[in-house]
Amino acid sequence: MTDPEDLVERVRDGELRLHELEDHADHDTAAEARRLLLERETETELEAIGDYAFPAEAAEPNIENMIGAAQVPMGVVGPVPVSGGAATGDHYLPLATTEGALLASVNRGLGVIRSAGGADARVTKNGMTRAPVFRVAGVAEAAETVEWVNENGDALAEAAESTTSHGELIDVEPYVVGDSVYLRFAYDTKDAMGMNMATIATGEACEIVEAETPADLVALSGNLCSDKKPAAINAVEGRGRSVTADAVIPGELVEERLHTTPEAIAEANTRKNLTGSAKAGSLGFNAHAANVVAAAFLATGQDEAQVVEAANAITTMDARENEDGTTDLYASVSLASLEVGTVGGGTKLPTQAEALEVLGLRGGGDPPGSNADALAEIIAVGALAGELSLLGALSSRHLASAHEDLGR
Amino acid sequence: MTDPEDLVERVRDGELRLHELEDHADHDTAAEARRLLLERETETELEAIGDYAFPAEAAEPNIENMIGAAQVPMGVVGPVPVSGGAATGDHYLPLATTEGALLASVNRGLGVIRSAGGADARVTKNGMTRAPVFRVAGVAEAAETVEWVNENGDALAEAAESTTSHGELIDVEPYVVGDSVYLRFAYDTKDAMGMNMATIATGEACEIVEAETPADLVALSGNLCSDKKPAAINAVEGRGRSVTADAVIPGELVEERLHTTPEAIAEANTRKNLTGSAKAGSLGFNAHAANVVAAAFLATGQDEAQVVEAANAITTMDARENEDGTTDLYASVSLASLEVGTVGGGTKLPTQAEALEVLGLRGGGDPPGSNADALAEIIAVGALAGELSLLGALSSRHLASAHEDLGR
Amino acid sequence: MTDPEDLVERVRDGELRLHELEDHADHDTAAEARRLLLERETETELEAIGDYAFPAEAAEPNIENMIGAAQVPMGVVGPVPVSGGAATGDHYLPLATTEGALLASVNRGLGVIRSAGGADARVTKNGMTRAPVFRVAGVAEAAETVEWVNENGDALAEAAESTTSHGELIDVEPYVVGDSVYLRFAYDTKDAMGMNMATIATGEACEIVEAETPADLVALSGNLCSDKKPAAINAVEGRGRSVTADAVIPGELVEERLHTTPEAIAEANTRKNLTGSAKAGSLGFNAHAANVVAAAFLATGQDEAQVVEAANAITTMDARENEDGTTDLYASVSLASLEVGTVGGGTKLPTQAEALEVLGLRGGGDPPGSNADALAEIIAVGALAGELSLLGALSSRHLASAHEDLGR
Amino acid sequence: MTDPEDLVERVRDGELRLHELEDHADHDTAAEARRLLLERETETELEAIGDYAFPAEAAEPNIENMIGAAQVPMGVVGPVPVSGGAATGDHYLPLATTEGALLASVNRGLGVIRSAGGADARVTKNGMTRAPVFRVAGVAEAAETVEWVNENGDALAEAAESTTSHGELIDVEPYVVGDSVYLRFAYDTKDAMGMNMATIATGEACEIVEAETPADLVALSGNLCSDKKPAAINAVEGRGRSVTADAVIPGELVEERLHTTPEAIAEANTRKNLTGSAKAGSLGFNAHAANVVAAAFLATGQDEAQVVEAANAITTMDARENEDGTTDLYASVSLASLEVGTVGGGTKLPTQAEALEVLGLRGGGDPPGSNADALAEIIAVGALAGELSLLGALSSRHLASAHEDLGR
Repeated sequence: MTDPEDLVERVRDGELRLHELEDHADHDTAAEARRLLLERETETELEAIGDYAFPAEAAEPNIENMIGAAQVPMGVVGPVPVSGGAATGDHYLPLATTEGALLASVNRGLGVIRSAGGADARVTKNGMTRAPVFRVAGVAEAAETVEWVNENGDALAEAAESTTSHGELIDVEPYVVGDSVYLRFAYDTKDAMGMNMATIATGEACEIVEAETPADLVALSGNLCSDKKPAAINAVEGRGRSVTADAVIPGELVEERLHTTPEAIAEANTRKNLTGSAKAGSLGFNAHAANVVAAAFLATGQDEAQVVEAANAITTMDARENEDGTTDLYASVSLASLEVGTVGGGTKLPTQAEALEVLGLRGGGDPPGSNADALAEIIAVGALAGELSLLGALSSRHLASAHEDLGR
Repeated sequence: MTDPEDLVERVRDGELRLHELEDHADHDTAAEARRLLLERETETELEAIGDYAFPAEAAEPNIENMIGAAQVPMGVVGPVPVSGGAATGDHYLPLATTEGALLASVNRGLGVIRSAGGADARVTKNGMTRAPVFRVAGVAEAAETVEWVNENGDALAEAAESTTSHGELIDVEPYVVGDSVYLRFAYDTKDAMGMNMATIATGEACEIVEAETPADLVALSGNLCSDKKPAAINAVEGRGRSVTADAVIPGELVEERLHTTPEAIAEANTRKNLTGSAKAGSLGFNAHAANVVAAAFLATGQDEAQVVEAANAITTMDARENEDGTTDLYASVSLASLEVGTVGGGTKLPTQAEALEVLGLRGGGDPPGSNADALAEIIAVGALAGELSLLGALSSRHLASAHEDLGR
Repeated sequence: MTDPEDLVERVRDGELRLHELEDHADHDTAAEARRLLLERETETELEAIGDYAFPAEAAEPNIENMIGAAQVPMGVVGPVPVSGGAATGDHYLPLATTEGALLASVNRGLGVIRSAGGADARVTKNGMTRAPVFRVAGVAEAAETVEWVNENGDALAEAAESTTSHGELIDVEPYVVGDSVYLRFAYDTKDAMGMNMATIATGEACEIVEAETPADLVALSGNLCSDKKPAAINAVEGRGRSVTADAVIPGELVEERLHTTPEAIAEANTRKNLTGSAKAGSLGFNAHAANVVAAAFLATGQDEAQVVEAANAITTMDARENEDGTTDLYASVSLASLEVGTVGGGTKLPTQAEALEVLGLRGGGDPPGSNADALAEIIAVGALAGELSLLGALSSRHLASAHEDLGR
Repeated sequence: MTDPEDLVERVRDGELRLHELEDHADHDTAAEARRLLLERETETELEAIGDYAFPAEAAEPNIENMIGAAQVPMGVVGPVPVSGGAATGDHYLPLATTEGALLASVNRGLGVIRSAGGADARVTKNGMTRAPVFRVAGVAEAAETVEWVNENGDALAEAAESTTSHGELIDVEPYVVGDSVYLRFAYDTKDAMGMNMATIATGEACEIVEAETPADLVALSGNLCSDKKPAAINAVEGRGRSVTADAVIPGELVEERLHTTPEAIAEANTRKNLTGSAKAGSLGFNAHAANVVAAAFLATGQDEAQVVEAANAITTMDARENEDGTTDLYASVSLASLEVGTVGGGTKLPTQAEALEVLGLRGGGDPPGSNADALAEIIAVGALAGELSLLGALSSRHLASAHEDLGR
């Protein structure tokens, strides 16, 4: 076994570069050597960062220049009662966050939903996208390219699917801006989040486009995908899973448990989430869906940067009058572009894999895609619970005081 | 010391509820008991989740129903060479992510920037916002309220600032939609990200508004803040820090190190980040700023859900001709609403605090606010490096193959 | 008097160019000559276009290469009952349109509003904007420029206001993107729509900026104005007048006259104008405000191209329960960026001036600005009437059949 | 023939209502009577408004409560040299506006384009849309409805097309938000702008949806159409015609005629139309496309309120280096949602019909749709000319002074 001090010295001598240490030692030793270097360079102690709970080698596909791990507190909420297209029954949902009061809030909402008989959820659209941009001489060539693409879907599918055993090309949508042609490829990537699968498959398809049309590839992503940017194209057309969760909460429950009324929650939702977001020029018509999405993403090994668009959500809350004169609260959250997977990416890391086990959704589903669908549905119900609870708190004016109580 | 099995039994007997365990045992035992319950309930083993590197009590302000921690691989990039308004010199930047190739990519970009003499960075605007929504009878009362607010800034500041020793009220901007009035309060919260400070201060100011005008508070947040939603109001007016980083890269360096030309990068940027994002109806005119922002947020204890708006960025890349006939690449990233802090929130957690130590930015700055400013500037330079590297790769068509090489 | 045939011949001989005819003949003869040329070139007869009702010379500031006039049917709706900040009492509102059923619909809405006791209206913000873009070397210079601008508002105001006897500089807001600095100048332009006034004043102010800072002017408009583009900056911050109109309609009236209920209208508004527009990624949360705005703009000589942003509107409709158990409908329209004037531009043209006379708002107001304010308020009430009527029709499913009845 | 004074008296006596006059007199007399009433009521003289150039009866499908006409100065620009998919050769384009300097500017741009050999243009997408919103019990029913719609396109087409002899249903796209289901129907409406055709056809299709699924129609338009609102869904997916025009201008021409360089224009376009619009949160990445669109719409009888979305445009300007060392300017305008027709609506009105004659595009085309396609292409080239000219002026700093010269 290599001595980390030895590696440190060789880096200091300019013999090795910081990212090359794994070529000369096992991964944990390499990480230790980097910590040593960094500690001396910055006069710090990296004990906690170095005290990680997995073999560094396990993280090889996920990180370079590893020094250890960030540890984010993880808690659990639930059970999440969901009647979905893929998920059914009760699930515990692990959430990792530094946002105090979040889990308490979600749990409060889940309690209300459970008492109301659970939530429904459905994935209503599915497709991971990648949209390369091509250069043409001008609009005449652009029109020619669009026509070819529209007529040769089969050839594109054959090329794209030659690179993957699971993925299926669903659609290719062309967009023209001057001498740029964008082709938005959408794939069913089953239980994988699928961005890399989509990228590789699209790269292959691009070769056919370049061979058969006047178009030259400029960039394999032309931002109509749109990955990790808050874009209307995702909010409108979806990316990954488009998923809705909803529940009907009897007015009595709203009063007992949330200390407010269906009408007051509906009013708060309309003035804040609909009208307020409208005035803000927003793509997010919700209270804090991002909190649940980010915490679930972190716990289950999803891509944290995709929270940007995964949190695109519209929350609706309406008072529904019953025939017997009582009033229910209809509550829903619709997430347009929730990119999730149960295989690949960060899902293999130990704490993340365990969190997926807790959900019963680790690895590929049967049928393929059903685990990722179920994960999307459960996150959506979690987000719904968070919305219910926060809107309840806001409409009974608890937000500031709740935070005050928690001493932050 | 309490036996965790004892707690488990008492929960099963209905004597205790899951979130009450900390009242009957130390925090680590409570977390252990929850893991035991969850393991039995879900037939799993939560070894890695339970193997966290800090006393559970330290996470009390950040989580409820704690079962352990999510561990996300952390690496380091740098040195980041920055000539900023607050940050100067070289800084190592810890990044936590599951996105393979990200750190390698950022490091490649940083190497280019270092060879070019470093990057400039400036915070050009600063203000944490909270925007309550009030109900009025109609527009006549709305106009009356707006007038009162415009004329009584001092009274609002006095009330708001009575709740905080650090924060200063900078501005209150009123917006009217029908019978809703939104007041967007902006604060200088120094080294704290400041959302809770802003919420509490605004709550106090709202009482004055309610006392002196016809307006009734509906919700302490009316979504014009706008927190954790991708809203134009943040992209236009900023939230937290508005920060720009830029660098001028000699054409020779672009060719040697990125294997492309300033002109090719500028073209890729225009077609993808400007025109492509325009066509996508996007608020994000960049390649992957969210990757760096999310990874830096995770490493340094920022709020992961705020990545949604913190990643709002415009990247520009232009070829600049010199008098001697050579061409440089001017590269910039402008992040409109980067909400960061070096005190409070998740910054106190052990691995996160160590990461801030590595940056030399743990705790309050001197003068107050300078540490958070510096953090914003360093993240901006990191994002710039990521943009440079990815656009370089795209314009030399390496994206798919880079991922392929890494075996994902 | 010159013979138009003579002009025709001289153009054909290449002696004169088409736009030079006014130098050689009176304006009507020049227009006639152009029609003759065009008739022969295109084998058409331009009788109606040539049969205009004003001396061509009167249109000199508005058109070049004049051949005549477009005639658009004009009708009248009203009286419009408005209790505004500037407008009071009943006003007839002329509307010019080719959209059959529009005036009937607006009139129906106005009838309901009249029966309900009229509408309130208020201009809640006012400012015509122009935002030049400057080039700097990088963010260091950008920060320097922003600082100078923030500290030298008086110098900018002095320069800007030296070019106008009426306009006042209200605010200059700086925005930085890489090596571009945008300064959004906002002016009170009184009864003029004011875009040209703002442009000229800003041009003067730019010279100071160039003299005192490192910034170089690239374009006098940098699109953060934002003129004639649908931009969030206008929807959020306003341009021209931000104006709201609202009314409370007793449920009985809704039933008798609109054949529906407050609840049904509120539901249609929420699903269509709020949720539907949210899903569409829209800046327009209304049913058809643009119809009324465009028709009023055309009738009163406003800039038709500004309909783009002038129609940015949020419509709210809520059922309000009274203490006696009855339910009212609260209806509002908030137009964020209605650019209107009663002097200058097209307001001097004969039919347009007459339409302003009908409104009692031709020329400058007393105090200055009050006529344009009043025009904004009346148009807002007209838009409110249109919203009420269309939402009433939709919620009783009349849209298609109404159009069918009218035989289109 | 009825005496208008007689009608006036009967209205004053309450015997007749203002909109009923056409039942008791010919249309011109009815209009005259209304003018008389209005003149007395408002103490005005409506001579010019009453001096219109067409039989009032001709305007019956377009207006109610007619009093006359708005007359807007019309001029002509051109010839417009276009090599399009539908339009070819030279066309004179009539424009009606009150915006002085506009025609001069467009003509300057057209002159440059002609000297450069003309512009290309193509309609790259076509579809008039209407999107009803339905209510369901919740997401379970929503998913059921979406599935039915996806599987029963033929039944929907049959129903929709039963109402029209020309229109064809191209696509139905479902969107789910909570308990609302939106179906966006897209039609090929040939030479008609087609909104009414689309509305009627969709109304018929909705009956099938209601009969076969749990969905209940709430409103025939649910704002995902999206008509007369600035919505991303139109900017991304198009509405009416998506059309691009472009031209390559030799650098020499740019210098001689626009007194600037390709590089300077490209820089102004990038900083203003791309980066500036990005920062403004805009859907309009152009300088003033709306000016040309509005003026052409007014001249040719299009719907002025649709300028809102018809002006959604992205302008690109790039310097292209040639092998011989010279530089060209590539200039393009892409209009995403240009709704135009050559039959129906306001196209039958006399001045408007004459303007279409001048273009050679009055009435239905051969093949059907080709006239509307050609109109779209010509307007796009007109918009391109306007962009070229204004960007040229801005980059040589002429904007303010041009307006100053014209004395406004």
